[in-house]
Amino acid sequence: MFTAIVTPRFGDMDVLGHINNTVLAVWFEQARNPLFVIFAPKSHFADGTFQLIMAHTDYDFVGELMFGTDVEIRSYISRIGTKSFTVYQEAWQSGKLCCKGNAVIVHYDFGIKESIPIPEDKKTLLAEHAYPKVLGVNHE
Amino acid sequence: MFTAIVTPRFGDMDVLGHINNTVLAVWFEQARNPLFVIFAPKSHFADGTFQLIMAHTDYDFVGELMFGTDVEIRSYISRIGTKSFTVYQEAWQSGKLCCKGNAVIVHYDFGIKESIPIPEDKKTLLAEHAYPKVLGVNHE
Amino acid sequence: MFTAIVTPRFGDMDVLGHINNTVLAVWFEQARNPLFVIFAPKSHFADGTFQLIMAHTDYDFVGELMFGTDVEIRSYISRIGTKSFTVYQEAWQSGKLCCKGNAVIVHYDFGIKESIPIPEDKKTLLAEHAYPKVLGVNHE
Amino acid sequence: MFTAIVTPRFGDMDVLGHINNTVLAVWFEQARNPLFVIFAPKSHFADGTFQLIMAHTDYDFVGELMFGTDVEIRSYISRIGTKSFTVYQEAWQSGKLCCKGNAVIVHYDFGIKESIPIPEDKKTLLAEHAYPKVLGVNHE
Repeated sequence: MFTAIVTPRFGDMDVLGHINNTVLAVWFEQARNPLFVIFAPKSHFADGTFQLIMAHTDYDFVGELMFGTDVEIRSYISRIGTKSFTVYQEAWQSGKLCCKGNAVIVHYDFGIKESIPIPEDKKTLLAEHAYPKVLGVNHE
Repeated sequence: MFTAIVTPRFGDMDVLGHINNTVLAVWFEQARNPLFVIFAPKSHFADGTFQLIMAHTDYDFVGELMFGTDVEIRSYISRIGTKSFTVYQEAWQSGKLCCKGNAVIVHYDFGIKESIPIPEDKKTLLAEHAYPKVLGVNHE
Repeated sequence: MFTAIVTPRFGDMDVLGHINNTVLAVWFEQARNPLFVIFAPKSHFADGTFQLIMAHTDYDFVGELMFGTDVEIRSYISRIGTKSFTVYQEAWQSGKLCCKGNAVIVHYDFGIKESIPIPEDKKTLLAEHAYPKVLGVNHE
Repeated sequence: MFTAIVTPRFGDMDVLGHINNTVLAVWFEQARNPLFVIFAPKSHFADGTFQLIMAHTDYDFVGELMFGTDVEIRSYISRIGTKSFTVYQEAWQSGKLCCKGNAVIVHYDFGIKESIPIPEDKKTLLAEHAYPKVLGVNHE
């Protein structure tokens, strides 16, 4: 698991006073930052060595998120396939689970425009964040 | 069906030159604006008469979205339940489907914090945007 | 002058029901898209040929912007210097000026990290959008 | 002075690999959160007791902001007038000043749509964050 703390911004509230649903997409993305340490250790993105592409995201809004209190995002690797993996994420505020969701990320060669196998060393690094504790590393 | 045209912004591109995945959440939200004409005809949101809350969203990224060309968002009502309904949406650019997703929206009384039935007249208005053409109005 | 029409999004409203001030930065950026046709005709940004960097922006909020009505952004080139130029922009809604601001953009070589002269042919293209009608092309 | 730490998000980068200029507007807004403790102690915004409106913002981009390193936002109250005040803010990354700007905020009665005097007790709270250390509390 890796965690991130985000501070809601005034503009994150919608007119009803709740954190807008679209904000969760941004918070979950920020909370996935540690993945870039695995796949782009030097923060090089534009030089062709970064090889991840987003295939799917989903969000279940199970509680109200409010302005004024920090939010903890908990992220787990819930699946490791041959060419893709899934991140399961939760947003907690004041001890309550408010949103949970998944991101399916594909290891991808932007040159040939095809998904490619995840190297074993990176699978090992991903497995350190497995959910709940033991994760079967699948070979799709 | 209802459609919206969005123009990608420079800041919508991520470092790889693609439209960032979080932007789709915002575009799909904008494209659902006509729902507010149904549920908040006078654009009154803060007076307690607006009764929609987001329960779920998902996004499948099936093609690359680029800067420089407008994007058409097509929205359909794919399910009408007793207390909630589902919007199915697609993002098209240059004749290609690039993203599709769903939003499950609940009719909700923020005072008593419970979901409440969708009035029949609003179900009728929703059904005008049914997908594909005929939609069975369910009673959950 | 060049114009852009933007449709306010539900999430663009803040909790007071107004369009949040940070949204104007994004709208004005979108409205400057035609500049990319001048400086990046092929929408190539990551290949080193794009040579603009933002030096300054300012915004005066002179009226309330609301959800539910489209906004027209009017953009003018108000200054053309040797190595930089200024874009003056206005946001109009329902016949009222609601926000006005400036963006100072520098012609910049990201390789040597220095500002560089704007080519004469691009100055001519910029001057077509001068404000009010005649613009003295300065040589700083 | 009050400070906030923000973590750049992947989507905050533009296609050139820099933090997009529009992101600073959002970061500076987040860094002004402590002002809400002064003017909306109970985080009540929609009940008519919140009386601030943004009149002006500006941003000078004096250095490149990158992904991968946290950013410290330093905020100071640089002017306290009768009916408005100014916040001066700086964004620092890796020991370098990268952006600085001002926000002019007006004490405002949304009911009568007029600016109104800032109460003395709130002026005192603002003055605690004066820049550099001594701030003359003006009476416009």
